[in-house]
Amino acid sequence: MKKKKSFPLGKVYTLLEPGPVVLITTSHKGAHNIMTQSWHMMMEFEPPLVGCLISGNNYSFAALKATRECVINIPTVDLAKQVVTIGNCSGRKVDKFARTGLTPVGASLVQAPLLAECYASLECKVVDTRLVNSYNFFILEVLKAWVDPAIKNPQTLHHRGKGKFMVAGETIKLPSRMK
Amino acid sequence: MKKKKSFPLGKVYTLLEPGPVVLITTSHKGAHNIMTQSWHMMMEFEPPLVGCLISGNNYSFAALKATRECVINIPTVDLAKQVVTIGNCSGRKVDKFARTGLTPVGASLVQAPLLAECYASLECKVVDTRLVNSYNFFILEVLKAWVDPAIKNPQTLHHRGKGKFMVAGETIKLPSRMK
Repeated sequence: MKKKKSFPLGKVYTLLEPGPVVLITTSHKGAHNIMTQSWHMMMEFEPPLVGCLISGNNYSFAALKATRECVINIPTVDLAKQVVTIGNCSGRKVDKFARTGLTPVGASLVQAPLLAECYASLECKVVDTRLVNSYNFFILEVLKAWVDPAIKNPQTLHHRGKGKFMVAGETIKLPSRMK
Repeated sequence: MKKKKSFPLGKVYTLLEPGPVVLITTSHKGAHNIMTQSWHMMMEFEPPLVGCLISGNNYSFAALKATRECVINIPTVDLAKQVVTIGNCSGRKVDKFARTGLTPVGASLVQAPLLAECYASLECKVVDTRLVNSYNFFILEVLKAWVDPAIKNPQTLHHRGKGKFMVAGETIKLPSRMK
């Protein structure tokens, strides 16, 4: 279990800008679900906006469209096996919490659960659906962020395709005026 | 200099899905420019579509809007200093090629140049501008991809904010049916 604390919304970009694989949770008609996802990007610093593509084939697509809420959870390499298991089955047929043993924790502002085992969780609502019909592209606003402050250099996963993941390596710091 | 060869369009997602910092080149009114960028994502496998946010403050914004063409170049850690230099000055005032010593190479289908020192370069055209006014969000189609086949496990840079970069670590492979 990660011990997450409230995290400033203005720093959410530092979590997603590096491009980690995420686990998106939804809650619809009394059932929680999880999907593995890599096609996301930051679109604004504050309030933080996140662009996010979820294929219409995914069970989570209907849940997100109907409820307009989700949680973006960021796993680290210790959860690699669960990340792949979640990506390889559908919530239509499988209770992914039972299958993976991941623990849902109540969020503060949305119905979708936080994942206890992930070092960061972002409670989100859908704020723009203009490109959903064309591209399955949702724009989310992060309403509340939770991060385990003990994890300074998270070993996030970065998908290279077909089950190959780059694991986050060392962090370097260069003098910069960039945000 | 990286020795890049033609790369299948259907595999472009394996380059961008991990979330690397990129160097976007444009060419406008006879002058080339470069910007450092991390807010991008894959939106379709083939033809590959890339969502890309470029602030209206950036000199490259006007070039991309006017010419509807650019090249997404992917640098590795050996170019970290140039990546930061490019991010910290504007093409309005500075010739970034002269400042960094990076080498422009003619592309095949667009006016914007490839960067010789980057291991991968993606020639792109703008295909959707519906969210440019609201978010400075462009959708690009990759027309042609170039990759140095000698570089199997590229040490890409992943921005954590304020000049802190995660450098790509080891690659792990798990059995998966995910694309």
